[in-house]
Amino acid sequence: MRFTAFFSEQAARVVRSPGIYKFAVLVAVSGGGIVAYADATSNPASEYTEAAPKKKLVVLGTGWAGTSFLRNVDTSLYDVRIVSPRNYFTFTPLLPSVTCGTVEPRSIVEPIRNIMKKKTGPVSFSEAECYKIDHANQKILCRSDIGTNMDGNGEFQLDYDYLVVALGARSNTFNTPGVPEHCHFLKEVEDAQRIRRSVVNCFERANLPNLSEEEKKRNLHFVIIGGGPTGVEFSAELHDFVKDDLSKLYPSTQELFKISLIEAGEHILTMFDKRITQFAEDKFRRDGIDVKTNFKVVSVSDKAITMTNSSSGEVKVPYGMAVWSTGIGTRPIIFDFMKQIGQGDRRVLATDEWLRVIGCDNVYALGDCATIAQRKVMEDISSIFKVADKDNSGTLTGKEIKDVLDDIIERYPQVALFLKTKQLSDFSDLLKLSGGDAAKESAELDIEGFKKALAQVDSQVKMLPATAQVAAQEGQYLARCFNRMKICEEHPEGPLRIRGSGRHRFKPFRYRHLGQFAPLGGEQTAAQLPGDWISIGQSSQWLWYSVYASKQVSWRTRFLVVSDWMRRFVFGRDSSCI
Amino acid sequence: MRFTAFFSEQAARVVRSPGIYKFAVLVAVSGGGIVAYADATSNPASEYTEAAPKKKLVVLGTGWAGTSFLRNVDTSLYDVRIVSPRNYFTFTPLLPSVTCGTVEPRSIVEPIRNIMKKKTGPVSFSEAECYKIDHANQKILCRSDIGTNMDGNGEFQLDYDYLVVALGARSNTFNTPGVPEHCHFLKEVEDAQRIRRSVVNCFERANLPNLSEEEKKRNLHFVIIGGGPTGVEFSAELHDFVKDDLSKLYPSTQELFKISLIEAGEHILTMFDKRITQFAEDKFRRDGIDVKTNFKVVSVSDKAITMTNSSSGEVKVPYGMAVWSTGIGTRPIIFDFMKQIGQGDRRVLATDEWLRVIGCDNVYALGDCATIAQRKVMEDISSIFKVADKDNSGTLTGKEIKDVLDDIIERYPQVALFLKTKQLSDFSDLLKLSGGDAAKESAELDIEGFKKALAQVDSQVKMLPATAQVAAQEGQYLARCFNRMKICEEHPEGPLRIRGSGRHRFKPFRYRHLGQFAPLGGEQTAAQLPGDWISIGQSSQWLWYSVYASKQVSWRTRFLVVSDWMRRFVFGRDSSCI
Repeated sequence: MRFTAFFSEQAARVVRSPGIYKFAVLVAVSGGGIVAYADATSNPASEYTEAAPKKKLVVLGTGWAGTSFLRNVDTSLYDVRIVSPRNYFTFTPLLPSVTCGTVEPRSIVEPIRNIMKKKTGPVSFSEAECYKIDHANQKILCRSDIGTNMDGNGEFQLDYDYLVVALGARSNTFNTPGVPEHCHFLKEVEDAQRIRRSVVNCFERANLPNLSEEEKKRNLHFVIIGGGPTGVEFSAELHDFVKDDLSKLYPSTQELFKISLIEAGEHILTMFDKRITQFAEDKFRRDGIDVKTNFKVVSVSDKAITMTNSSSGEVKVPYGMAVWSTGIGTRPIIFDFMKQIGQGDRRVLATDEWLRVIGCDNVYALGDCATIAQRKVMEDISSIFKVADKDNSGTLTGKEIKDVLDDIIERYPQVALFLKTKQLSDFSDLLKLSGGDAAKESAELDIEGFKKALAQVDSQVKMLPATAQVAAQEGQYLARCFNRMKICEEHPEGPLRIRGSGRHRFKPFRYRHLGQFAPLGGEQTAAQLPGDWISIGQSSQWLWYSVYASKQVSWRTRFLVVSDWMRRFVFGRDSSCI
Repeated sequence: MRFTAFFSEQAARVVRSPGIYKFAVLVAVSGGGIVAYADATSNPASEYTEAAPKKKLVVLGTGWAGTSFLRNVDTSLYDVRIVSPRNYFTFTPLLPSVTCGTVEPRSIVEPIRNIMKKKTGPVSFSEAECYKIDHANQKILCRSDIGTNMDGNGEFQLDYDYLVVALGARSNTFNTPGVPEHCHFLKEVEDAQRIRRSVVNCFERANLPNLSEEEKKRNLHFVIIGGGPTGVEFSAELHDFVKDDLSKLYPSTQELFKISLIEAGEHILTMFDKRITQFAEDKFRRDGIDVKTNFKVVSVSDKAITMTNSSSGEVKVPYGMAVWSTGIGTRPIIFDFMKQIGQGDRRVLATDEWLRVIGCDNVYALGDCATIAQRKVMEDISSIFKVADKDNSGTLTGKEIKDVLDDIIERYPQVALFLKTKQLSDFSDLLKLSGGDAAKESAELDIEGFKKALAQVDSQVKMLPATAQVAAQEGQYLARCFNRMKICEEHPEGPLRIRGSGRHRFKPFRYRHLGQFAPLGGEQTAAQLPGDWISIGQSSQWLWYSVYASKQVSWRTRFLVVSDWMRRFVFGRDSSCI
């Protein structure tokens, strides 16, 4: 999952008042009693007491998508069972900060039981890994991997009426040999802890007696593969860690230390505006970070990384530590599930616009483990025409178009996007553009004209990025659907069904992009906010601090993250190798 | 190492003013610049630049003894080389707090390079394990165990002129089968982290579906073997963790949870006053901790602990997690060294009263890896008589005794101790007690009378406890000796040599016991201070907080420990399984 930031009204509120942190502590202190009291009264029996009438809702995963869903779903309506190999939620956007000790690992995790204890209704959590979804029998197969002290192998099964799959993705090595053995990934809090130890170990190794200059250099060569937000942020953190802290404790290594950032594309941070990419590349070069674009890593051994470049051919560089962050891939359990439900030929699990897995009515998938397969207008064009042509005249009047327009735009967001991109104010402009004269209400449009008008809109179908922001919004959306399931069955609120009758129960999921940050080190951050508003520098860094503090899932983590930042300012980062 | 507390003038100062913490943060903030400035100027070249005239001083270990020595030694006088498998110092008395998340691991460690960077003169540190002391060739053999990316196996050798051995001890399992495989120890910060994960895992395991009541009970049975300060403090911490935090997150497990504290002796905390032992046992029983005294563990399997008791015979109890803390043993490298220097028949490495290893002039040993073999008066009685009998008359006059008395008492502290225990005001009282009449200055004493008078004093020879307090004082003492080596060679300050001529260079090491704490949970601590002053309750808990905060090695750890305590008060302890 990429590390992105997101804005909201709450965030903006916090930004305005830095004094809120003091207030926060006070609130938290005085709230301690209330929480304790709530504990004593809520959850009198958390395990399956009044299960009979309630549907079993099984949630897999406690990442951004799963936790966002769980925080918002009304647990009194369902018998909620959560399965995850981790009993906590991780605030992943701060993982790069954990790798170098700017923030402590415990400051960015919150136990899922803590998040759920305020909820009413039965919620059970099992720390286990789901290794198979058996859709035919409506159950999941799980394995607990904790300790050796269990009878049997800690396996169990759970039935479901509804299944919410939020298992996330795995790091994608693109089958590059040697990567799983020799490279660090950066997806879990344990990865970040390992990287932290590894960085300090490289410096300790370079300080052992009897090492040649070359060996020292190799140990102090840090290679990051992947110029996306994670790779860039880690490079920046590492550079700051060495410059601010380690260079003072290991003075003899100052000249030998080197960071290389390897990117297969032409630029780093390509998902950002060009100005940000340019600024980042310039800043990194000034900082002495070797940004190697157009280099593709082909193999990694224990001592060297081999890469190719169209001009210089194959290059072999010795290294001390390597971090691999080139993107995400599908987990084996998801592939297996896709085969069961007829999605075997796809690369990623597909859902419809309501986050329901295509091919299963009661299975939902969200976050990095799935993508929304947006229906194309041209696939449904005849049905759309039929729905709009209420009088079955074979032609559409302007009024007929107007009547269904909102539903079409809701069902096919690419239509609105196309209008916006082409700077058309209205659907009638689109028809005009395509040569028709349906702008006048009197003029009529046949199927061919209609097709012609909409021919280009599908070019605007976009995949959502694999970010925390998307996952969190999906979780929130799906929880709202589950909470309103009963009401919406009777009073559907979605758009007209194009290939059916009546209306969809819910409005389809719509992603609202709230901006994205790229921290570049040295208290410099680049921010790309909605409306192509770009901000680079120290002010963005403070915005970053504010947003990330406000987005924490609990007052505890908020307090800890803020005090970690303060601690770093005063005392620097710790280099103890634990 | 047992967890003890110790008082000093600085500590007492901090106790009086709780407001000092605020001040501390201010000082630390404003001091940041100074520290940074000092970094830039000191240690211009830390690696062997002006090595020629200076003697090579190799220090093994960065625990209490080693770090205390390093903090106090004048590094400008020697070429100091430190070797330790850990690049940090651990404040071990807070380890039990780390096991349950009351204090975070990073809050009790300080990088040794950070401690040493304020020093002048060349100091090198190598993160490696010394696996052999080759005394014949005056060198140590080391192995670096960090990473797989080293050429060769990371071995190296270091020559020494002086060697300071502060390697600590290992946990002693008394060869009980199954202990190394199935029990946790509590000596390192990694042990504490493992225990913390293990505790939460036991609760998660007990909450998996399809578990019988019996299996749940087994998983929630925590067994602590050893009723010393570590075992008792861990039991108390665990009880508080469960009562304050886990019971709210795992409500169904409340009735099933159990702690057993197993002690082979008749009572727990036997090194404390009886009143404290009694209070601790009573409090634990009230808390529901099963204190099993007179039980000896004979074997541990993956699911059960077998113990014997004289009345009930062999008992087998199923358990979820076990912590072993019954005492310490000698490390293999020390045994090997002992064989080389003719101490092969001993169980522990012995030093003289100046901390010099018996049999080696230039090797010093301190902390848990060695004990001081106090010379017995009766072994030296003839020599003492000869030294005192200046006129070689074969008898001692009162004046002759008086002249050497201070030296005797300094050299043989058991004499003073014996006088104190028997409530004798003076040495002449002792002579009187033994039937002589040497009290009168005119009376004379022959060798037999002298022997008779001192016959009982050796009963007061005591081994120093294996505590942080002893190790720290030893380190400080030895550093002072090293700093004054040159001066004292010319102007010896020690007592008269009994089996030689002249005076000893230094005064022998004298331990000053500053008191000891036993935290019992629920904000209750027992304190045993010098002069048999006993204090039990919440006030001692606050004393404990003050002393432990003041004893931190750096402002950073002090700030972190105090803010951890505050965090625990406000938000409780974190139960994320990382």
